[in-house]
Amino acid sequence: MADRRPIGVFDSGVGGLTVLAALLARLPDECFVYLGDTARLPYGAKTPATVERYSLQCAALLRRYDVKAIAIACNTAASVAVPAVTQAHAPLPVLGVLEPGAAAAVAASASGRIAVLATEATIAGGAYERAIRALDPRATVTGLACPLFVALAEEGLTSGPIVDAVVRHYLEGLDPLIDTVVLGCTHFPVLAPALRAALGRRAIVDSAATTAAALAGLLSRHGALAEGGEPPAPRVRFLATDGVARFARVGRAFFGDALTDDRVELVDFAG
Amino acid sequence: MADRRPIGVFDSGVGGLTVLAALLARLPDECFVYLGDTARLPYGAKTPATVERYSLQCAALLRRYDVKAIAIACNTAASVAVPAVTQAHAPLPVLGVLEPGAAAAVAASASGRIAVLATEATIAGGAYERAIRALDPRATVTGLACPLFVALAEEGLTSGPIVDAVVRHYLEGLDPLIDTVVLGCTHFPVLAPALRAALGRRAIVDSAATTAAALAGLLSRHGALAEGGEPPAPRVRFLATDGVARFARVGRAFFGDALTDDRVELVDFAG
Repeated sequence: MADRRPIGVFDSGVGGLTVLAALLARLPDECFVYLGDTARLPYGAKTPATVERYSLQCAALLRRYDVKAIAIACNTAASVAVPAVTQAHAPLPVLGVLEPGAAAAVAASASGRIAVLATEATIAGGAYERAIRALDPRATVTGLACPLFVALAEEGLTSGPIVDAVVRHYLEGLDPLIDTVVLGCTHFPVLAPALRAALGRRAIVDSAATTAAALAGLLSRHGALAEGGEPPAPRVRFLATDGVARFARVGRAFFGDALTDDRVELVDFAG
Repeated sequence: MADRRPIGVFDSGVGGLTVLAALLARLPDECFVYLGDTARLPYGAKTPATVERYSLQCAALLRRYDVKAIAIACNTAASVAVPAVTQAHAPLPVLGVLEPGAAAAVAASASGRIAVLATEATIAGGAYERAIRALDPRATVTGLACPLFVALAEEGLTSGPIVDAVVRHYLEGLDPLIDTVVLGCTHFPVLAPALRAALGRRAIVDSAATTAAALAGLLSRHGALAEGGEPPAPRVRFLATDGVARFARVGRAFFGDALTDDRVELVDFAG
C-alpha cells in the first residue's frame, strides 16, 4: 500500500540541502518537508544537551506536517540526537546521516585509515569514530574539527585564497597513509573542489548518497514507500525558523536555482 | 544614595567581554552580571525580528538578578533592540553600544569619511549610518559586512595567513579618503592588530571606552552609581545559555585569564 505522506528532513540551516538533493534523486516518487533551524544555527559549537533539545523541537515541528519518516540531515544533530528523536516518535522511522557516512567511508577505504572532517561538536563526541569502527574494527579514524569550513560555506566562499588558506590550516600534515576523507558535515560538499586539490588521490566521501540509499531501505522495511504515481509538485516544502530570504540565497549554493525566496515558509516552534 | 545593585550586560556570546573590560575599568565601584546567549549565537546573520525577540529574553533574564541598568554589548542587538528593551523595562536605564561607537567615530574623524565594519545584520539595518549622521550630518559612511571576522574571533584565529587573506578580502579597495574605521562588532577588537596593518594610518575605534563613559553618565543621571565602598569580589557574575567551558575558553581571548571555567554559570530562559 503506497504511503503518500511526505518525508521530513531537518538541519540547522542550509547544509542539509546537499542530502535533500540526493534524496530527491534516489526517491523520485517521494515528497519532502525540509526544515532549516536558521534562528539558532549553527549547531556545531553547541553542547550535546542543547543540540538534542533543538533536534527534538525540529522533529516535533515536522510531525505537524504529517511526515512518515524523519531524516536528520545535520551531522552534529545526527551524532547526538538519533536515540532521543527515535524514542520520542516511535514507531516512526528516524535516520541520521552519520551511519551512512561511516558506511561510505569504510566502503571507500583500502587502508582502513580514515579522516573525518566535521564540526567541533561532532568530533568531540566521537560518534563517527564509533560508527566507523563498528563496521570495521581495524579502522584507524582521525577526527579533524574544521569549524571555519561552515563559515566559508555559509558565506558562499567556496574557492580562492581564503579557502585555500583555511584548507591548508586544517589539512596540513595529514597522515599520508590516510586514503579516505569523510565530509562529516553537510556544509562541506560545496568545498569539495577546493579540498580535492589538498587531498590528492585520497577518496572524498559524504553522507548524501548513502543516506538516500539507507532511507529507501528503511521506508521499504516499514512498508512506507510512495511507490509510483505522481508526487505533488513541487516535491519539497521548505521551512525555516528565521530569515527566509537569506535561507533561499545561501541555499542556492547547495541546492541550485530552484530554491527561490517565495518557496520558503517562516515557521516557529511555538505554533 | 549609593545603589549597589549590579549592572546587567548581554551579548550573543563572548564578544561583549571587550565592552565588559572597559566597564570594569571605567566604573571601579560597580559590579556586573554578564550574559552570553551562547545557545543561539551568533546574532549577526539573523533577522531584526528574531534578534529583538532574543534581546528581550536576555534582558528579562538579567532582571532576575536585580540589575539596576542594562548594557546591550552586542552591536547587532543594539542596532535593533534598544527601543523594545527600553520600553519593556522602563524606567530602567538601557544603553546600547551603537551610539557610543558612532560618537567615537565622529570624534576621531577629520575627513568625515567613516567606514563601519560589522555583521551582515548590523550593516543591512543601517543603524550605524543613522547614528553617525545624527552627530555629523556631513559624514559619509561606508558600511562593510565582515561576517567571517566573527568566525575567526570565535576560533581564536587572530593572526596569520588566514586572517590576512580575510582582511584583504573585505578591505581591499577601501576608499583612501576614509580616515576612520569603526569596529562595529564586539568580536572585532581582538583582530585589531591584523586590521592595523591593512588600514595604515586610519584611526581604528570601537565602542568599548565610549560605552563605559556613556554608561557612567547615564547611571549618574539616574542617581544609580554605587559611589565608593567595596564592590563584591569577584565583581562579575558570568552567565551563559550553553557551553560554559567553551564560553570560558574562547572568552579568555577577549577578557584574559581571569575567566576560568568554574566562574561561568549555565542558565536558561525558561527558569
